[in-house]
Amino acid sequence: MTNVRFACAQIEVIPGRPDLNFSRMLSAIETARQTNVDILLFPELALPGYFLGDLWERQSFLDDCEKYGQKLVEATAGICVIFGNIGLDRGKINEDGGCRKYNAAFVAHNKELLSTAGPYNFLLKTAMPNYRVFEDSRHFHSSLKLSMELALPLSQLLQPVAVTIRGHVIKIGVMLCEDGWTDNYETDIPKLLAANGANLLCNLSCSPFSLQKNTKRHKIFSAQSKELRLPLIYCNNIGTQNNGKNVIVYDGCSSFYQANGTLLCEAPAYDDCLLTCNYNAASNSFIPSSANIKQNKDNCELFMAVSYGAANFLKQIGITKIAVGLSGGIDSAVAAALFVHILGAENVLLVNMPSVYNSALTKSLSLQIAENLGANYCIIPIDHSVEHTYEQLQTAIIRNYSTDSFFSTQLSDLNRENIQARDRTRILAGLASAFGGAFSCNSNKTELTVGYATFYGDLAGVLAPIGDLWKYQVYDLGRYLNEVVFNKQVIPEEVFAIAPSAELSSEQTVGVGRDPIIYDYHDHLFQAMMENGRKTSPNEILKLYEAGLLETAIGCRQGIVDTIFPNSASFVRDLERWWNLFTGFAVAKRIQAPPIVTVSKSSFGYDYREAQLQSYYSPEYYEIRQRLLSVRK
Amino acid sequence: MTNVRFACAQIEVIPGRPDLNFSRMLSAIETARQTNVDILLFPELALPGYFLGDLWERQSFLDDCEKYGQKLVEATAGICVIFGNIGLDRGKINEDGGCRKYNAAFVAHNKELLSTAGPYNFLLKTAMPNYRVFEDSRHFHSSLKLSMELALPLSQLLQPVAVTIRGHVIKIGVMLCEDGWTDNYETDIPKLLAANGANLLCNLSCSPFSLQKNTKRHKIFSAQSKELRLPLIYCNNIGTQNNGKNVIVYDGCSSFYQANGTLLCEAPAYDDCLLTCNYNAASNSFIPSSANIKQNKDNCELFMAVSYGAANFLKQIGITKIAVGLSGGIDSAVAAALFVHILGAENVLLVNMPSVYNSALTKSLSLQIAENLGANYCIIPIDHSVEHTYEQLQTAIIRNYSTDSFFSTQLSDLNRENIQARDRTRILAGLASAFGGAFSCNSNKTELTVGYATFYGDLAGVLAPIGDLWKYQVYDLGRYLNEVVFNKQVIPEEVFAIAPSAELSSEQTVGVGRDPIIYDYHDHLFQAMMENGRKTSPNEILKLYEAGLLETAIGCRQGIVDTIFPNSASFVRDLERWWNLFTGFAVAKRIQAPPIVTVSKSSFGYDYREAQLQSYYSPEYYEIRQRLLSVRK
Repeated sequence: MTNVRFACAQIEVIPGRPDLNFSRMLSAIETARQTNVDILLFPELALPGYFLGDLWERQSFLDDCEKYGQKLVEATAGICVIFGNIGLDRGKINEDGGCRKYNAAFVAHNKELLSTAGPYNFLLKTAMPNYRVFEDSRHFHSSLKLSMELALPLSQLLQPVAVTIRGHVIKIGVMLCEDGWTDNYETDIPKLLAANGANLLCNLSCSPFSLQKNTKRHKIFSAQSKELRLPLIYCNNIGTQNNGKNVIVYDGCSSFYQANGTLLCEAPAYDDCLLTCNYNAASNSFIPSSANIKQNKDNCELFMAVSYGAANFLKQIGITKIAVGLSGGIDSAVAAALFVHILGAENVLLVNMPSVYNSALTKSLSLQIAENLGANYCIIPIDHSVEHTYEQLQTAIIRNYSTDSFFSTQLSDLNRENIQARDRTRILAGLASAFGGAFSCNSNKTELTVGYATFYGDLAGVLAPIGDLWKYQVYDLGRYLNEVVFNKQVIPEEVFAIAPSAELSSEQTVGVGRDPIIYDYHDHLFQAMMENGRKTSPNEILKLYEAGLLETAIGCRQGIVDTIFPNSASFVRDLERWWNLFTGFAVAKRIQAPPIVTVSKSSFGYDYREAQLQSYYSPEYYEIRQRLLSVRK
Repeated sequence: MTNVRFACAQIEVIPGRPDLNFSRMLSAIETARQTNVDILLFPELALPGYFLGDLWERQSFLDDCEKYGQKLVEATAGICVIFGNIGLDRGKINEDGGCRKYNAAFVAHNKELLSTAGPYNFLLKTAMPNYRVFEDSRHFHSSLKLSMELALPLSQLLQPVAVTIRGHVIKIGVMLCEDGWTDNYETDIPKLLAANGANLLCNLSCSPFSLQKNTKRHKIFSAQSKELRLPLIYCNNIGTQNNGKNVIVYDGCSSFYQANGTLLCEAPAYDDCLLTCNYNAASNSFIPSSANIKQNKDNCELFMAVSYGAANFLKQIGITKIAVGLSGGIDSAVAAALFVHILGAENVLLVNMPSVYNSALTKSLSLQIAENLGANYCIIPIDHSVEHTYEQLQTAIIRNYSTDSFFSTQLSDLNRENIQARDRTRILAGLASAFGGAFSCNSNKTELTVGYATFYGDLAGVLAPIGDLWKYQVYDLGRYLNEVVFNKQVIPEEVFAIAPSAELSSEQTVGVGRDPIIYDYHDHLFQAMMENGRKTSPNEILKLYEAGLLETAIGCRQGIVDTIFPNSASFVRDLERWWNLFTGFAVAKRIQAPPIVTVSKSSFGYDYREAQLQSYYSPEYYEIRQRLLSVRK
């Protein structure tokens, strides 16, 4: 038998646009045909997209996706195409009350769908992820439930599909994304497919980027192909999709794995391309082709994900211009540089909005950043307007119509700080609209954790590009922008050097007072509280503190805890302050925060889901607290 | 055998506070013991609460819930207590990667857990709702998957529990909420329990209120008990819980159903109480007790849900004072009256914020409303500040550092309208803080559907109490507030009579120009688009319009369509305008909107879930459109 030519169509999938995806897929089929591809793979749910919210409940949309799927089948003369789409069973009811829906793979060859095991002419996804951003069970019926319903063992449904290429039969074991991530599921799908005689495995994915994900994927998929002695193809899309609150980034990185587990080749990240490889059935292996082996070297995963995610999201919602409030601090400097990289300097408007509390230093740094980036820049002071608000609010005569008495209100220092922050949104929102664009929210993850931002003030914006980055990652990204992306010091060194300060009062201005957050410590504390597997709680933190193990456990500098906190009482006070905010008012703020470009495995938004609850402490917490505070340290 | 005394503890469950719920449950057990109750039921997940977001992934919290559960078991001397709690299996992995979690029911008697079928000392929920606000499969392992894992038929796991009261055995078939709502599931759980010998059925629920839900519940549960000839007890909690975006209201309404399907008694809605009933085993029936038969008559479901929901939510997050921007229109009038009812007039601050476009009529109506309600009231004009913003933005010199040129921006009419709306938030947010409270978002569902509200302007607030009410429901609620709640015309008749207008320009002010939304028609159009089962799409709407069936299909007044739209072109233009907004910019706005008190079966928030997508029209839509527009109507 001659070699069989496989290809992955690593396309950008536009969520909710089966019309556009259909056109893109047609042209990919044409390209594949011209390069003699025998079997062409598309990603999971390539026609509809994956993160669609409850568009999945719109019957007319489902009908259309099915029709486009049929048209795709008709386009497979002389080529075998395996693609992800929604599979419908109108005779059965879905648990959401609509018509039965499956997250399905279709195998089409010579204008016909190949026959598959089970009652449908498509293959079903079995492992349904329902954690993080995923809600497969909300929309899709699983093969697990179908097997119970039909009283058929699951192993009978999970059969490879026999594709005949030039008279030779290859049995392809098709998986959909999570089917290949077997860790937390009872059923080992690749093993079942192998037991049922698959010659090779294909994984059609719509698998989001997260930091270090590809390392984990290589580990799992390598082990899988090695253990089962089967070559494996991973076909993933590029683009961004979103669930409202999280901008989910797809890096593609489609790959071919040999049956011995080695990674043969990987498509470049974020590149719309066809990754091709020949398969030799006799040796059950792919034939290396040097042209295919592209690896992304010397780039920063973080920068790629954040800039691609922000760029693609703005493109999808049709925004081409951005205004950024520029304070002279690191967060807005990084946001400004990112948007200049994404949209071009001519489409970025940087606005410095000083009050009496802004230092000469930060004002001068703002100007330098604008100059260095070659962006549009203006200065609009807020002194007058803020004073006007103070006066209006304090002189307003309020009449109580129950008692027929009169009173006025007084503004606290905190009230005044929030008025300043909101006054900047007054300017930024108005100016962005007049400029023909939107404006950026420059909040980072550390601030978002404890709600260190003002509602309708610096919390506002169309997108939070660095909202999933801890403060130390914002600095890292700033350095990378200088050193690699711009190859010059667009963000001045002093921006990295000054202690972060909100500059909202005379006590809190650069050179005088800094943020109440001490990033070297709190970055790590907050990360332990919301990113690690067991979600560290105050009782566990106190226990670690009491045992002197906290720094090691949360990964911050040795000795830092005692430097910051002279005694247990101050440690406890700090912990409770932030825990109360994290689980209290900060939740309310996050509920109204903009979408966040998601790069971690636990991002605020609909990834890490939250209700507004009362702050809770474990009985154990009170015990340890009592013990700690009764001893003078 | 003597009679067995059952009771439902219809308690308020505080989500995320097992400590408080434990105390409340202890006192309910004490009360029950004093009134000779033999078997006491608590709601589903009564200890932890149900809508907790990913607090379910916090191991320390899970450990605490388990411990409180054990302490509850120790409190069951002389009484049988059936309660909902999380069931843990630390030896197994959950699909979210943490320890295995079940949504479980525990049956405790005389300080011991009664033995149950299956590997655990608790019973499992089988039907896992994953639609609307529900995400059971995100957190909980189902008995369905367990039965596959153990290779045991599900029927073997779903056994009733034998409770011995004074020497007599009653086999109780315990269900958890969705287990009793069998419509869309393959497994009929009550039938399985009956087949396994249950003498009576108990449904422990945490079942949210929605309009008409109780009617449907009575229908389903009546049919269930009648068909299986088993008495049925429904135990539901009261209170509010939330998922961040939706304030979910629990009305309780715990009920006893006779084996012939009749509803014997129902606990009053929103009342923390013990509903007691004696059971006679010989006749397999409950013994009617007139004291128990309380029905809620003459109240308005809508008013009860909205006011209880808003009140309880504010109580839980600790807010006791509210500022309301009062325009003289119906939405803010209803919000003002609601908050006065909830918090008392002395805790409500009404603020009229006129610009040059506000009419004398609406200004005078505002004052009347404040007087009628006896609330606190003030007038803070926005003319000066708005002019200042216009000037600041238009005179700011922007320097382009690429070309070293200068330019300024101009404000469009729309820019100016948005600046006015945001300027009111400047005042309202500042004043609310100074007053010691938060402020209300007065948007209704019709406006939210198409984003007819300004970002960081009238879209802002701590809560949108009427955000799940179509405009016609807002009017209904206004009438009810006047006629029943206040028993006087607190909202003047003219507020009902004037055509709604945003009063943001000289063309758009009361008496001159009205909202672009024509509520008599658009209320119904939008309802069809997002509330009905198949989620009507533009192609379906055009098809109905072409056939002259639209008014009947969407439930609006006959003849209204032709009155509003002189020809097909104007109909199509209107449809596309709102569809593009509904699926476009309005989604971005809803993502940053406040929590909504949820009363319908499809509320914006995380109930009806949305991604930011490009607006999509079906190929069929373009066909019909083409046909319609080629003919002059």
